[in-house]
Amino acid sequence: MKITNLEKQVAFIKEIDKIKYIQRKTKLFNSERRENDAEHSWHLAVMAMVLAEHSDKTIDLLKVLKMVLIHDIVEIDAGDTFFYSTTKDHKNTEEELVAAKRIFGILPEEQAEELITVWEEFEAGETDEAKFAKSMDMFEPLLQNFSNNGGTWVEYDVPYQKVHDKKKEIKNGSTTIWNYAESLINEGVEKEFLKK
Amino acid sequence: MKITNLEKQVAFIKEIDKIKYIQRKTKLFNSERRENDAEHSWHLAVMAMVLAEHSDKTIDLLKVLKMVLIHDIVEIDAGDTFFYSTTKDHKNTEEELVAAKRIFGILPEEQAEELITVWEEFEAGETDEAKFAKSMDMFEPLLQNFSNNGGTWVEYDVPYQKVHDKKKEIKNGSTTIWNYAESLINEGVEKEFLKK
Repeated sequence: MKITNLEKQVAFIKEIDKIKYIQRKTKLFNSERRENDAEHSWHLAVMAMVLAEHSDKTIDLLKVLKMVLIHDIVEIDAGDTFFYSTTKDHKNTEEELVAAKRIFGILPEEQAEELITVWEEFEAGETDEAKFAKSMDMFEPLLQNFSNNGGTWVEYDVPYQKVHDKKKEIKNGSTTIWNYAESLINEGVEKEFLKK
Repeated sequence: MKITNLEKQVAFIKEIDKIKYIQRKTKLFNSERRENDAEHSWHLAVMAMVLAEHSDKTIDLLKVLKMVLIHDIVEIDAGDTFFYSTTKDHKNTEEELVAAKRIFGILPEEQAEELITVWEEFEAGETDEAKFAKSMDMFEPLLQNFSNNGGTWVEYDVPYQKVHDKKKEIKNGSTTIWNYAESLINEGVEKEFLKK
């Protein structure tokens, strides 16, 4: 019996439900509760919608939304890697690529290929859309940590310079958002969330 | 001191974090854990991406994504109304409109107006995009209930006819998805999830 496109898509829709169980290190705003990947992806999508005007380049918002909505689906197999991890490279693309092929591979072939390509474009971070999507991915936890008296910065004793160096990638997508983010990071030093 | 667009947008980004605490009646797939509005909205967005080909009409996917991503933000003030509630009309637009104006009103004026308009278009359910977005909103909990041995249908003793009548709205967006959904509902009767 031939499996229809819709049946494959429904199987995919069920499979990706699992990202609701994948906990990030970062907590919700003013909260003790860790955020999960579905909540995080939703937040990035709405952020991209409302912050698009600050992109340094003209972007295809639909492409950006696709990127942020699916960027963490690979973590169903590969797990979440802490952004400031000192033991594991955040860009563990080998393990994540296998995951992308398995999970997006549940979809009809053409659609699977399209989404793997979108995911790879995000990961590579070279196009204007990927740069802006990554800015969102960097900006949300920065805002969360700031609202949580330093959050994971304090919890894991992350030094100022590391935060500044890594978050500076926001500038690739938006100078305006980076300037704002940098001022928060500096304020974080004053408030002793970050040690210089 | 003039509040910049970015500052208003950041205030909005913080405010909408609250939908992560709004619990729906429906539970995650094969799960005892209730879904929250952020997870639900994320899931609808990815569903819209992968199911768009089944829309009966040509749709602007970006518009559909905006709709599903923001459609439940009003519940921060108005709360979630159970789809099969016998005491409260699901379309409590008066209370929800006040909520929409307050919450989207945190954004810069033009942007607030745009999102209120998108939300109203979704609620009215008259355009092709709104019809398809609403199909997604109907289809996800149906799949979840089916994966949970009847889920809220059994928990709240919802009769077959009510489910069939209400879910038939899926057909406004997609005949293909409705045919599939209807076959699941009928299977739900066989499995005694639904009483005829």
